[in-house]
Amino acid sequence: MKTPLTTWVPGAAGSHFDVDNLPYGVFSQPGEEPRVGVRVGDFVLDLAPVAAAEMLDVHHVFEERSLNALMAEGRTVRESVRRWVTGLLTEDPERDLVEPHLVPLTDVTLHLPVEVADYVDFYASEHHATNVGRIFRPDGEALLPNWKHLPVGYHGRAGTVVASGTPVVRPTGQRPGGGFGPSARLDVEAELGFVVGTASELGTPVPYHAFADHVFGVVGLNDWSARDIQAWEYVPLGPFLGKSFATSVSPWVTPIEALDAAWVDLPGQDPEPLPYLGPGETKGLDIDVEIVVNGDVISRPPYRTMYWSPAQMLAHLTVNGASVRTGDLYGSGTISGPEPDQRGSLLEIGWGEETAFLADGDEVTLRYTAPGTGGGRIALGDVTGRVEPARG
Amino acid sequence: MKTPLTTWVPGAAGSHFDVDNLPYGVFSQPGEEPRVGVRVGDFVLDLAPVAAAEMLDVHHVFEERSLNALMAEGRTVRESVRRWVTGLLTEDPERDLVEPHLVPLTDVTLHLPVEVADYVDFYASEHHATNVGRIFRPDGEALLPNWKHLPVGYHGRAGTVVASGTPVVRPTGQRPGGGFGPSARLDVEAELGFVVGTASELGTPVPYHAFADHVFGVVGLNDWSARDIQAWEYVPLGPFLGKSFATSVSPWVTPIEALDAAWVDLPGQDPEPLPYLGPGETKGLDIDVEIVVNGDVISRPPYRTMYWSPAQMLAHLTVNGASVRTGDLYGSGTISGPEPDQRGSLLEIGWGEETAFLADGDEVTLRYTAPGTGGGRIALGDVTGRVEPARG
Repeated sequence: MKTPLTTWVPGAAGSHFDVDNLPYGVFSQPGEEPRVGVRVGDFVLDLAPVAAAEMLDVHHVFEERSLNALMAEGRTVRESVRRWVTGLLTEDPERDLVEPHLVPLTDVTLHLPVEVADYVDFYASEHHATNVGRIFRPDGEALLPNWKHLPVGYHGRAGTVVASGTPVVRPTGQRPGGGFGPSARLDVEAELGFVVGTASELGTPVPYHAFADHVFGVVGLNDWSARDIQAWEYVPLGPFLGKSFATSVSPWVTPIEALDAAWVDLPGQDPEPLPYLGPGETKGLDIDVEIVVNGDVISRPPYRTMYWSPAQMLAHLTVNGASVRTGDLYGSGTISGPEPDQRGSLLEIGWGEETAFLADGDEVTLRYTAPGTGGGRIALGDVTGRVEPARG
Repeated sequence: MKTPLTTWVPGAAGSHFDVDNLPYGVFSQPGEEPRVGVRVGDFVLDLAPVAAAEMLDVHHVFEERSLNALMAEGRTVRESVRRWVTGLLTEDPERDLVEPHLVPLTDVTLHLPVEVADYVDFYASEHHATNVGRIFRPDGEALLPNWKHLPVGYHGRAGTVVASGTPVVRPTGQRPGGGFGPSARLDVEAELGFVVGTASELGTPVPYHAFADHVFGVVGLNDWSARDIQAWEYVPLGPFLGKSFATSVSPWVTPIEALDAAWVDLPGQDPEPLPYLGPGETKGLDIDVEIVVNGDVISRPPYRTMYWSPAQMLAHLTVNGASVRTGDLYGSGTISGPEPDQRGSLLEIGWGEETAFLADGDEVTLRYTAPGTGGGRIALGDVTGRVEPARG
């Protein structure tokens, strides 16, 4: 095991945002344009001026309003930049240069970190899919015939992916039977999101073992869902307006390298999946999630209990030749563990009861932690949102 | 009725690309960057140098690689630019300035005209939905319970929308029961696509009567489909890999104003839709489509037979508060008329027979014409693509 590096940044050592984390985000200060920063402790390091002073050849990517230019540089640059930032924050000779560019988190506004290209949502938790099947089809098989053969997924709306903190207006729409009004079954889905950095070519699948060549990092993700709108519309072409009003993501994108200590074997797959899905190599992430409603933790879904792996989802998404682009985002689907207190949606937590869903004014926060490479734990960015009443 | 304007452009008067058409596209000449042009007759007018010479205040939008900057300017600018271009091509004093910037179509490469933001696909033809229902559920009701209450739709993959002429690689994937290989049921869907110019705000629906404030124009659209992949994957979350490998659009975006003479009453809606869908005001477009396979016209779907209108689809897409962005594209769904020779997909034309689908090397072209404001007919851009064998 490597000796953990020690940072000189006040308060950062031993925190959830120590130098084994270093997630990227987009921040602004009053009167200034948004630009790229990295979080350490309770500070944002303003990367653009430091990179310019050190004559880094990719310094321009930090002057952008999203991480897309940085992410498009590819895996080698991603790893080099991470080593450079780690050096800045751990080596004393750098302190004089760097310290003036540490901005307290309380002084900044955080923005949507990624210009989202395509957004895909999977359905990769067996416990979630089974719970939903039991709730909606109590007399049938809980899992549909295709579920264990492929990671079921669909496209969502990229244009309504919003940054954590953005209020969520209760959606209005058609309900079962053709009624109309504000959704009475507004729900959350606690998910993990994967952000693509390196694009691929149309017509050429991304193999499962190339996951880390293409995926830049992960975000926390709340796939807000209006269950009544969804129930009426989704046969036969899938969820549409029941999901498209808002999807919230964390302001920080945690690079894949920060999760090196978090990989674990997933529970196992039976039947064995097809070769393009890398049978026997299904590694997941040991990320603990907390769902917090109005300050109370109501559930603790464990990501290590998922059925389909992140690499399998990417391999499946592209097996037909579909290309990925810088900024593509794919969600895991609701994370639900086997226990009742590990469910990732209010639909499951309340087992379909009307009273379980969100009221106007409710505030939901998703929190995520994982083992860090320094021996402690790191956090992903929180994903929070408050429900506003329906308009009009 | 207005007296039709007469153009001085050689061969354009009386053609399908007379001055009552004037669609926009993105073109390039060898060694030059792609930029915005307008089609007249068999020429592309290179707008950037003309606009610069005439000191048009929006001249920079023509120097872009997509129409998005032009489209984002909004309806008033769209209408002004159209009047300006019409003047350039009809008034003799302009001829000396303009003629050097007319480039023969044979000398240019045409590109994807729009940087697609979100792509949504509807299912708005009653005849298509009924045919599909009868083929897949011969013993059930042909139409599902929600179909006449709302325009059923779903999100597709924006990143694999390609320009007409791009080869389509036969997709590989899982088939019913978990088999794997190249799709044996590769199909076309003849659709009309609507391109959004003016964005809307998150949380605020676009009313049906604001259609022309937001929609810039229309494209021809082929939503290539792998029926075997789709059949296995689509329950319960809808089509995914069966569609995401390629969606082809015409290189020309026909502005809404060019279709002023094409609006017709649609067949009628029963039950009466909800108020947000503008009951009794369902105007469609009298656009004739031809599906041409290897040079033979195999079907002639009429767009005037659609059930849901373009304005209803936009109102539905946003009723939950979802925003639209410049570059959003929504497709009508397969256009099928009531007669057997008016079907918009090979699935319907062959009524599910395996032999009806596309073979490697097949070339499909969709052609579209509509009444023009000049008394004749105008054409949308053709949408063409040749099937290449599966890879790997």
